[in-house]
Amino acid sequence: MSQTNLNQSNASSSPSEPSRQIRLGAFMMIPGHHVAAWRHPEAQATGVLDFNFYKKLAQTAERGKFDMVFLADGYAVAERFPEALEQTVNVRPEPFTLLSALSSVTERIGLAGTVSTTYNEPFHVARKFASLDYLSGGRAAWNVVTSGSDAEARNFNLDKHVQHDLRYERAEEFVDVVAKLWDSWDDDALLYDKASARFADRSKVQAIDHKGKFFSVRGPLNVARPIQGHPVVIQAGASEPGKELAARTAEVIFTAWQTLEEAQKFYADVKGRLARYGRTPDQLKIMPGVFPIIGRTEEEALEKKALFEQLIPEQAGVALLSGLISFDLSGYPVDGPLPELPQLSQINGGKSRFQLLKDLADREQLTIRQLYQRIAGARGHREIVGTPSQIADQLQEWFENGAADGFNIMPPYLPGGLDEFVDLVVPELQRRGLFRQEYDGSTLRENLGLQRPARQHASTPAEAVRVAE
Amino acid sequence: MSQTNLNQSNASSSPSEPSRQIRLGAFMMIPGHHVAAWRHPEAQATGVLDFNFYKKLAQTAERGKFDMVFLADGYAVAERFPEALEQTVNVRPEPFTLLSALSSVTERIGLAGTVSTTYNEPFHVARKFASLDYLSGGRAAWNVVTSGSDAEARNFNLDKHVQHDLRYERAEEFVDVVAKLWDSWDDDALLYDKASARFADRSKVQAIDHKGKFFSVRGPLNVARPIQGHPVVIQAGASEPGKELAARTAEVIFTAWQTLEEAQKFYADVKGRLARYGRTPDQLKIMPGVFPIIGRTEEEALEKKALFEQLIPEQAGVALLSGLISFDLSGYPVDGPLPELPQLSQINGGKSRFQLLKDLADREQLTIRQLYQRIAGARGHREIVGTPSQIADQLQEWFENGAADGFNIMPPYLPGGLDEFVDLVVPELQRRGLFRQEYDGSTLRENLGLQRPARQHASTPAEAVRVAE
Repeated sequence: MSQTNLNQSNASSSPSEPSRQIRLGAFMMIPGHHVAAWRHPEAQATGVLDFNFYKKLAQTAERGKFDMVFLADGYAVAERFPEALEQTVNVRPEPFTLLSALSSVTERIGLAGTVSTTYNEPFHVARKFASLDYLSGGRAAWNVVTSGSDAEARNFNLDKHVQHDLRYERAEEFVDVVAKLWDSWDDDALLYDKASARFADRSKVQAIDHKGKFFSVRGPLNVARPIQGHPVVIQAGASEPGKELAARTAEVIFTAWQTLEEAQKFYADVKGRLARYGRTPDQLKIMPGVFPIIGRTEEEALEKKALFEQLIPEQAGVALLSGLISFDLSGYPVDGPLPELPQLSQINGGKSRFQLLKDLADREQLTIRQLYQRIAGARGHREIVGTPSQIADQLQEWFENGAADGFNIMPPYLPGGLDEFVDLVVPELQRRGLFRQEYDGSTLRENLGLQRPARQHASTPAEAVRVAE
Repeated sequence: MSQTNLNQSNASSSPSEPSRQIRLGAFMMIPGHHVAAWRHPEAQATGVLDFNFYKKLAQTAERGKFDMVFLADGYAVAERFPEALEQTVNVRPEPFTLLSALSSVTERIGLAGTVSTTYNEPFHVARKFASLDYLSGGRAAWNVVTSGSDAEARNFNLDKHVQHDLRYERAEEFVDVVAKLWDSWDDDALLYDKASARFADRSKVQAIDHKGKFFSVRGPLNVARPIQGHPVVIQAGASEPGKELAARTAEVIFTAWQTLEEAQKFYADVKGRLARYGRTPDQLKIMPGVFPIIGRTEEEALEKKALFEQLIPEQAGVALLSGLISFDLSGYPVDGPLPELPQLSQINGGKSRFQLLKDLADREQLTIRQLYQRIAGARGHREIVGTPSQIADQLQEWFENGAADGFNIMPPYLPGGLDEFVDLVVPELQRRGLFRQEYDGSTLRENLGLQRPARQHASTPAEAVRVAE
């Protein structure tokens, strides 16, 4: 890895080849990423359904030149314990609706929304991301997930959630159908020619005629080819099928690692898979999650962390941990060790998160309580506690040593946790020449340094006619 | 029907019992309701995918104190003829995405989006309308449709679209599940109590445990009860099952009638069905579509109409008509009469529209060309051509004679057609005391004069516990 010149500002590098820059996502669980965030004295708990709260957050992230606002999603309330419904936040706006509303009060920041391939249809998903891409001027990104809980399945006509392998098989096809639909109109298909009565050139619009195992979709889409060609595709799966799907189709990977070594191994693994799909390493940005607790002094940061640990209701902590490892820990002594857990092959939720937390508990001999306290903030992602300079050091280390192209920042509580990052850490990264002073382009793709994809799925002209058969 | 006092302004009536007022929706096909709107010299054809165009339209409608912006939808391009893909507008933002984006640049106007029950899941639909209701401060409305074309079916894994009766049966259950999900949280379920670690009162949240013919949905929703209780429910079906569904569940009916007599008959029919569901006539607002061509003089209005007729490409006209009657007219002489059409029972599209247009052609002995010219603007809705005063007269006549509670205004071209209505017709209606000078309330429901529904679908407290089993 090359060393970054600490005094080199973004502006001083040549426009054609800027120095490699950290990418930043503002990953916003509301009102904060910590499971007890809403109890924090400065968290705006009443903001969870208030648009003005979200507007302020998005505008703060944009002021901090973040590449994107990133919203997670799930299709059910936390219901593992009755207490979870009471002690944690289970109501939020549907993220795509929210991102659409935010698109008109922001100008440059990307808008990344999570939508599951398990409980949706590709035509709807292709269409709404294409629409958001137009309405936002090319700032849409789709975080592809497969959903992994029985609670979600039960809201969509099933008793149990779909098996892991089948979910990924469906996701593979889903992502392909969406890409085909985005490519069903040529970039220059719209003519707007009033005199000749040609709104569009029909030779530049094709049905996709997709027939697969899961989907039969004729197309074309009823939205033109998106401004970005394709909205940016993000994935988070770190299992074998997850990594392979990402290597073939993703442009950003959102991932969770605790140590530099793990992150480096993952980074090299996934980047090494790209060549077999004809892709270069820079076509995929790997952005691990980072949960920062920021203090003006290290002591202040540690005090903040201690406060959070006190705020975790016991049942909420156990419920969170149970959800993350897809195994119900209720009934086990909270100050005892983890019970015997199933084999990884039997886990039908997030497999990589299960392994990560099991390893952590084994390595450090943690009780259930200690483990949930440890992960109640970062939820398996990397936690960094310290001063702005210490946090910048940690980010720089991963960025310069083959572990990350950027980071998804998970503010512990909101709005304060985001304000602190923007006001204290971002300027430090900028001083070190690691992060932009201004947005590089107008689209998310330009800001992330990703090429606009050429149209790949066009049919032959002969097929074009078949649209109208 | 009571006579309206022509000089009575809204403000002069007592607040507790204002005079009955016309409700107005801005029904916006882009860039205009006429099939050839995009060719109109003043239509902004290039605006179809430009957010600033929509923002201006919504803000204009809000300046005109419209109750709501109303967006239609469909899940496929027009593909009946190759020319339809070329000569008509087939690309627009997905309406719900667009309404969400508009929610943050408007303050009082309602946001009515069309979503089909045939190709969606109730959990998603309940959730996104509840979300929009929060983000907009209580301005969301759902226009329930069942979709009716093979082209749409082919984008969702089917060869042919679902049969009419089955679509309505599914719609009935779908609407009920959505209502149950909206009611799964009590209005006062959120506590935000940091000290006691109670974000919500779990005794006020219930699973819905719905198991029906089409859907199995456990709930609860992961959004709190909407600001309006339920977002306003709109329907457009005028077939027997459509009317019955509307009488049971709709709060606004969007409908198409050509003559006062037809509209009166429909109005009395539907209002007469309400009692059997324990509803009063004022709980359902009937708003026929109106396509106004406005001139400063009658002559100018007629010239505008003639211009539109010249702009219709022949194939686009035939394609539009074929779509509206669910029967392919290509190959028949365009200057000849309609061919022998199937019986109504064999029509699997919009049954009421089929009957309306067949009756019109029979009554006036129209050729195919004459019929498509006649309906290319209003598409089966009422066309009014004249001065602002003449248009106000026509609206007043229906409003005061048991044919309408309000109207969905369909500007022929945009933005000009909406500007004219707001600047010329709205003031005339206001002068006559028929339309508000200012918004009555902050929610759409308040503006429409609809009561906020009490929570009806709550389970017993015993069931509440089952959420967490």
